[in-house]
Order: sequence, then structure tokens, then C-alpha cells
Amino acid sequence: MTNGAQSLLSTLVASGVDVCFANPGTSEMHFVAALDDVPAMRGVLTLFEGVATGAADGYGRVTDRPAAVLLHLGPGQGNGLANLHNARRARTPLLNIIGDHALSHADFDAPLASDIAAVSATVSTAVITSTSPDEVSTDAVAAIEAAMGPPSGVATLILPADVSWGATTSAPAAAPLPVERTPASDSEIMLTARALRSAQRPILLVGGRAARSGALEDAARVAECTGATLLVETFPSISTRGAGTPVVNRLSYLPEFAASQLEGCDLLVLADAASPVSFFAYPGLEGDLVPDVTEVIVLADASQDAPGSLAALAAALDAPAQVANRNPAGLSEIPTGPLTSAALAAAVAATIPEGTVVVDESNTGGIYLAGATAGAPTHDWLALTGGAIGYGLPAALGAAIGRPEAKVLCLESDGSAMYTLQALWTIAREGLDVTTVILSNRSYAILTMELARVGASAEGTAASSMLDLSNPEIDFVSLAGGLGIPARRVTTAEDLAAALAASFAGDGPTLIEAVLPAGLG
Amino acid sequence: MTNGAQSLLSTLVASGVDVCFANPGTSEMHFVAALDDVPAMRGVLTLFEGVATGAADGYGRVTDRPAAVLLHLGPGQGNGLANLHNARRARTPLLNIIGDHALSHADFDAPLASDIAAVSATVSTAVITSTSPDEVSTDAVAAIEAAMGPPSGVATLILPADVSWGATTSAPAAAPLPVERTPASDSEIMLTARALRSAQRPILLVGGRAARSGALEDAARVAECTGATLLVETFPSISTRGAGTPVVNRLSYLPEFAASQLEGCDLLVLADAASPVSFFAYPGLEGDLVPDVTEVIVLADASQDAPGSLAALAAALDAPAQVANRNPAGLSEIPTGPLTSAALAAAVAATIPEGTVVVDESNTGGIYLAGATAGAPTHDWLALTGGAIGYGLPAALGAAIGRPEAKVLCLESDGSAMYTLQALWTIAREGLDVTTVILSNRSYAILTMELARVGASAEGTAASSMLDLSNPEIDFVSLAGGLGIPARRVTTAEDLAAALAASFAGDGPTLIEAVLPAGLG
Repeated sequence: MTNGAQSLLSTLVASGVDVCFANPGTSEMHFVAALDDVPAMRGVLTLFEGVATGAADGYGRVTDRPAAVLLHLGPGQGNGLANLHNARRARTPLLNIIGDHALSHADFDAPLASDIAAVSATVSTAVITSTSPDEVSTDAVAAIEAAMGPPSGVATLILPADVSWGATTSAPAAAPLPVERTPASDSEIMLTARALRSAQRPILLVGGRAARSGALEDAARVAECTGATLLVETFPSISTRGAGTPVVNRLSYLPEFAASQLEGCDLLVLADAASPVSFFAYPGLEGDLVPDVTEVIVLADASQDAPGSLAALAAALDAPAQVANRNPAGLSEIPTGPLTSAALAAAVAATIPEGTVVVDESNTGGIYLAGATAGAPTHDWLALTGGAIGYGLPAALGAAIGRPEAKVLCLESDGSAMYTLQALWTIAREGLDVTTVILSNRSYAILTMELARVGASAEGTAASSMLDLSNPEIDFVSLAGGLGIPARRVTTAEDLAAALAASFAGDGPTLIEAVLPAGLG
Repeated sequence: MTNGAQSLLSTLVASGVDVCFANPGTSEMHFVAALDDVPAMRGVLTLFEGVATGAADGYGRVTDRPAAVLLHLGPGQGNGLANLHNARRARTPLLNIIGDHALSHADFDAPLASDIAAVSATVSTAVITSTSPDEVSTDAVAAIEAAMGPPSGVATLILPADVSWGATTSAPAAAPLPVERTPASDSEIMLTARALRSAQRPILLVGGRAARSGALEDAARVAECTGATLLVETFPSISTRGAGTPVVNRLSYLPEFAASQLEGCDLLVLADAASPVSFFAYPGLEGDLVPDVTEVIVLADASQDAPGSLAALAAALDAPAQVANRNPAGLSEIPTGPLTSAALAAAVAATIPEGTVVVDESNTGGIYLAGATAGAPTHDWLALTGGAIGYGLPAALGAAIGRPEAKVLCLESDGSAMYTLQALWTIAREGLDVTTVILSNRSYAILTMELARVGASAEGTAASSMLDLSNPEIDFVSLAGGLGIPARRVTTAEDLAAALAASFAGDGPTLIEAVLPAGLG
């Protein structure tokens, strides 16, 4: 006899969903037991739900397939919510399975009861509650289809305990993967081509699936033959970078800089990118960064085939097959001297191997990274899409499972690292080839900047102490060791470069605490 | 000129809300800056929102006054949600302040935007969004009043950034504290007294505010003069225990045991306690633990004055002034030999000083604690009210700030500790007198038990590995050291007792990793 949990796991595996990041509790015990019956499912234990959801985000970004997460009722979902938010903003396909009390228990308002669906709805493209063991398979298929989209995103399946343990009579179904997306229509392509040709200062802004290798090539071809400026969104879910890739600048995080990038623009063409707005509001600054006079054309949104649309647009423009303006290979000189943000960027650029997946949550300490690594060996770059800190370590874990052949480099600022540090334990447990660099400046440096930018001041000690992480100093070498990761602390550029090179030369996880000047230094 | 944030802080302080556990971000920078202008507000920085909300829960439980938390938009609230859930179940007065994007930014769907109010509503008795600087003070008063109740609980104030930075013209208001509660009416008291006198096997179940010293005395007087069995709810928010307090058993967590405690009961009188239901559903077991034949009388619910109702009931029954059945002082013999759960309980009982606040998240490793400490010096006991693990370390932090004269002992199981370990850093930063014992059995032992109880099995390695925390072993001494807390590991009963005694003899934080037998041993 098969129970609902076994049917669910068979359905997931048959649909290509064969990794589950799990923080199970009592209501999920039949799901856990079913892992023995469906060995093709890889269960990955995490110590905190924010690690599970962030890992599924990282996995989904590098594979374009959903991982499942298994969370324990409403509080488990709460713990995972911030990284579900980031996944929602990344449009990562992700199957969010939440164990709930048995349906028979629903009326009792037991201590762990809460409104799970109301919270799920804030991050999900679909919320499905399975109400019988025989329906759990088709419910799972519907949830996987919702996760794949288009548009892709977080789909939530609420799984009552008695649906897990009840007997099924029907055979498990399977969801078709991958899905087809439709490009812009011929007339839309023609209209966009005409507009680009006649614009004085056009900008092509790419994001989402259009920030990757093939699509980026086509976007660059379009830009070069029309004189458009090619920009990539500020925080792409995954983008292809490095030597030989087309030259493309990122839209700045700082609204003043972004506004100057957009100044004088008479045509803005969007390929799987949102129309630029300021990340935060600031007193006296406009939130909408697009000049009033700019015509905005959405070539393709997240539901459409943006790469196909860019290819069609390049063809319609008779764009040359080859991109002229490519990033030249950079210098791989090992930096020396004091460890500054610039030196850190140079050390990364000088050491990363071809094909590295970089998970970037370096925030202020990482300001020189984009420039320094433009000519580094080709790599993929994952950014913090939703602004909810604590995504880096979990996403690195997920990316390493999704792309086992690659080196994964996690660039993690100290304040953000402390949100989901538990990820290190799972990285150690799974023996993943992840190099973590903690950018340790012992402060919420970005807030020191933002405090001034919003027109507030922290001249007194009460306010400024809220931005300070130096009392006590956090010892990341001890923390990593306590979670099973070999670690060392570096204070010079050459030591950082050597530590990075040594880590990349080996297999398995390491952590490097890179001590940077305090604050914004 | 005063801005909204300054007006808010002045209102809080004037209302007796003078502690704020904070994880601020850009949208909260004016609140942070205002800490310099309103020095009576104590800002306590945490590294993770779940620490802030759990600390406010612990603070509110020991003071009956709300602390404020300051969270950063929807993801910050998500990170804090599990401990808000626990606070909701504890009916802890708590002011949940969430910074949001400026109202002027609301239409832009910026990366950090999400439906904050929908999530707040799942844990809050009131959700108020402040829409102008001049209204923020009266909105804060309304939120504090909602937090105080009755019934008390989590009240949420959503604070857009431009409400914080905008100028106010009105003077700050203040909420009246504390609030009055009404006891049961005379006729309800008479009816309950008559029912208790005529019942064959009555049970008086106390919880909430009725689990504390004075109310517990009156409850015991009622029980003794009517022959009722006195029980306290399974997970009280705070209860008075130890030598000299009335003998009272806890309603069991395990539904089979709880059902046997309730068997044959013809009258159940509830004083600020919910009617007993099973914590989880199990195949073939009833969820409602109250026999069908039992008459249930709610003497007082959480909105009413349960202590006053118990006092009136004791008077109506002409109950003797003195309780006969009190816990005798226990033996304070120092245990020796291997460190087991029983030895751990004995070591705690032998060493805790009078007036200790015990924060209990010991789960399976703590099963002998209640029995062993029944005759220990009088102490207060905080339990995990909502089942969302990760409450212990934060609640200990908050309790230590709320009751600075007391020793705080945090009994924390390893799996739960890893949820909100960041609390140790704030405990170190604030120099709090908290002794933390990690019950390190390197497993989710409770799940090993629950797996069998729900009728599932984990004979294979895939399932059983999901309950195992031994690969790699978590080194809590390193982790505590990395967060600024002196720590040691103990493996014998006498070493644990010595470490506890040394910690209680000193001031300031320490951590003891108590290595227990694996699993349920």
C-alpha cells in the first residue's frame, strides 16, 4: 500500500524534482520516512528553514528546475519566508511544501496552528492545499507547473499530515518539464526595431533570463547595431560575466547614479527586466527613475521568451553575427598589501577558475568586484534579488548541489552571514565544493551610508551603536570550525589570494574571514 | 522640529515601553537616529529578527509590559514570525514595529516590497499602518493598548519611512499602563463553586496568568477544599515553581498520558487555559482530549481577570487560607557519574539560586527537569508556548533585560539552539547574567520519538539521517566563543554541576555544552 507521502515523492521524482531541502517536524514524518522508499529523491537536511528556502533559490537559479523545500507548519514557513521573498523576486522555480496539522486536527487551534495559506500567498504564484491522499499527486503536478510558469516562481503545496499518512489508490502522475515560452510577436519585434533605429539615445535593459550568455550576446548585437546602451538590471538572478562576454554595465543601486545612467534616454526597451525604480525612497528624490519623456517598450516580460525575442530582434535588425565590444581578459596579478575592498576584488579576479558560480552578498565591501572581475575567467554571478539579507550562504549551498561540477564562491558580508550561518553545517555535511569569503568589516556598513543618505544622523552613541558589529567582534573562524568547516583569517591581500587559490585547488568547503577596514573603508 | 520617529519614541517611553529589540535597515534609519534624541529608550541590537521577537517575548513574559521590536520590511517580519507566533500563543504583550517603504514609494513594487499587513495579521491582535507623522503617536498609543489588551498579545504598527522622517506638529501622547481586567461575575463564581462541590472527579486546569504565585495559591486552595485535581497547562508562558509552592502537575505533552490524566473527569474548570487538545494529530488517536461526558466551565479566559476569579472562587468556597500540599525542599545533592538527562535535571535542581528565571527549550533532554526541580529554590519557568523552536536563547536575552536582578538559566536543546544562536552575541554585547546549557544529544531526538508515534518508520538511512545532527558534530564551545561567550564542554554530572555553580556564582554570560547520550538516551 502506498501512502500520500510516497505518492508525492514519486510524483516529484517523475517530474524531475529530485532534491528536497528539508527542516522536517512531526507533521512531516511520513514524508521523511518515504525518503527510504523513493531513493531517487535527495533529501538535504538544513538546520534552519531560511537555509532550506535559500538553498532551493540557489539551486533553481543554476538549474532552471525547482527544488522542493519541506517546512514545518506556519513557523517553519515564517523562518523560510525571507528567502522565499528573494526567490519570488528572482522568479526562481521553487516548490514550497509545508506540512500542516492533519485535516482532522484543523478545528482544534493547537499550539502550532496558524494561517499558513495567508502567509504563503504573499510570496507564491499558487497556493494549493492537498485535501486527500488520492489528490496529492495531481496537486503536486499542479504546483510544479505553477512553479515552472511562465512566469516561474514559488509555488506552495500545503500538505496536511493525514494526507501524508493516508492510503492512496491512484498511480502517481508527473509534470512535464521544461515549459515552453512564447517570444514577442513579429509585429512587436518590428515595432521595437523601428523604435530603436529612430531613437536618439536608446537603452536596452536586460534582466532575468536575458542576462545570460546566449541572450546577452543577442542583446549586445542589438545594442551595437542601433547605438543603444546595453544595461543589465541591478540585481540579476543569474548573469554571465567575464572575459569574452559582451561589455555591459549594471544599472546602479544608488538612485542618483541610476538616474544619470538613464538621463536623456528617449527609448527604454525592457527584456525580462522591470522598469527602473529606486530600491529605497529617499527624502526629496524621485522613486521612478525613468525620465517622463522616455518611451518604454516591454519587448518581453517574465512570462515570455525574452532570449528568443532578443534573437528575433537581432535578426530583424540584420545585426552582425559577432559582438564587437567584449570584455578583454583581465590581469591576473596577485594583489599585495593591506586588505581593502579593492584588494579583495583584485584577489577574487586573479584566482577564480573558469566556470565558477559566484554567489554575491558582499554589499558595501564588494563595490569593486564588478569592475575587477569583468575580465576574469567566465563565470556566473548570482545577486541578492529581493533585498532580504541572509541569502548568500544558503544559495551557495543550493548552487553547489545544482551544479556539482563547478566551483562555488560565496562572497558574504559579516552582517548578512549571521542571518543564515547554519548553512555552513549543511555545506560541511554534504562535502560541497564551496569557498566562502566573509567580508568582515564589523559593521552594518551599508546602513552607515544609508543613514546619511536618508538625511538622518547618528552623531550620538545610541544610534551609531546600532550599526556597529564590533562589540563583541564576531570570530568567523571559530564559528565555521564549530559547524565543521575549516577556516582561516586573512588580513593582507596576498594572504587572501593565497587562501583563495588553495581553496580552489582543493575540493570541499573552506571559509576565509577577510578582515576589512571598519565601516565603509 | 520633531519628526515622526522622534514622536514615536517619545510616545513609547511615555507609555512605559522603553526597550526596543532592533534589526534596523534603511527604512528604519530615522527611528535609529531618534535613539539619540530619546535616551530613555534602550535600543538593543540583534543580529537576526527572530532574536529580536523572541527577546521581546521573554521580556514581556517577565514584566507584563510590552517591549518594542523594530523590524525591516516584510522579510524582517518573516524572520521574526516564528517567535511572534510563540508570543501570540503566550499572549505576551509585544509591540511589533515594522518599517516599510515610504508611502510615496508604495506603487513601485521595489524589490523589498511585499504584503506586510497580510503576514502581520496572522500573529497580531491589531495591525495599524501609520499614514502621517502627526498620527504616528496616536497610532502607537492604539497599538500599545492593543498589545496590553485584554487579551494581551502582539500588536503590529507598520511605519512607512516618510512617516518617520516627516515633520510633526502635535505633541506625543501616552498609553495608560497597566490595564484592568474584570473577574468572573458573582453568579459565574457561584455556579462554578456549586459545580465543583457536586462533581465526582473535578479538575481545575490553570494557565496563562493563573499559573503564577498568587493565583496558583488560590487555585490550590480551591482544589484542596473541593477535592479537585489541580493541573497546569502543558506549556505555560510563565509559571511559579519550586519549594514551598503548591503541588501541581503539568498536563502531559503526550496525548495518551494527557488522556489518562483527564480520564473519568466529570467537570473541567478552566482558568486562563485552553481546553486540552493533542499537540499534534496521530493516526487513530482523538485530537480533543476532553472526554465527551465532561462538563467544561470557563471560569475566566485570557480577557478576564483569572487570578481575581480564582481568589473570588476560593472565598465563595470558604477555602482555608493556607494550602496544605506544598512542594517540600528537595535534596541539593550534587549528582555524579555519566551525564544523562536525569543527571542533568539533578544538577540543575541542586544549583539554581532562589529567584532564577528558567527558560526551558530542553525538549526531550529535559524530561526529568520538572520532577527534579519541584523542590528546588523558588523559580519562574518559561515554556515553549507555540511549538516554534528557536525561542529559548532569545527569550533568555529578553528575560535578562526585563529582570536584571535575577539569574537567568537557559536550557536549550542543540537542534533548537541552532535556530537563533545569534542571540548569544547580543547576550555578550549587553553583558547579561545568562547561563546557557546546550543539551547536546546530536539529534532531533523528539522526531525520533515522533516518527515512531505517527506510525512511520526510518529503517533506511535516508530517513534516519534527516533526524541526525552528528555529521558533522556541532561544537557549541567554538560557536559560543565566536560570538563572545566564554564556554566549556562537560561530559559528567559533577562537571555540569560545578560549571553551573561557577556560572551562578559569577556575573555575566557563560555557556555550557552538556554532552548527552545520543538520541533519546
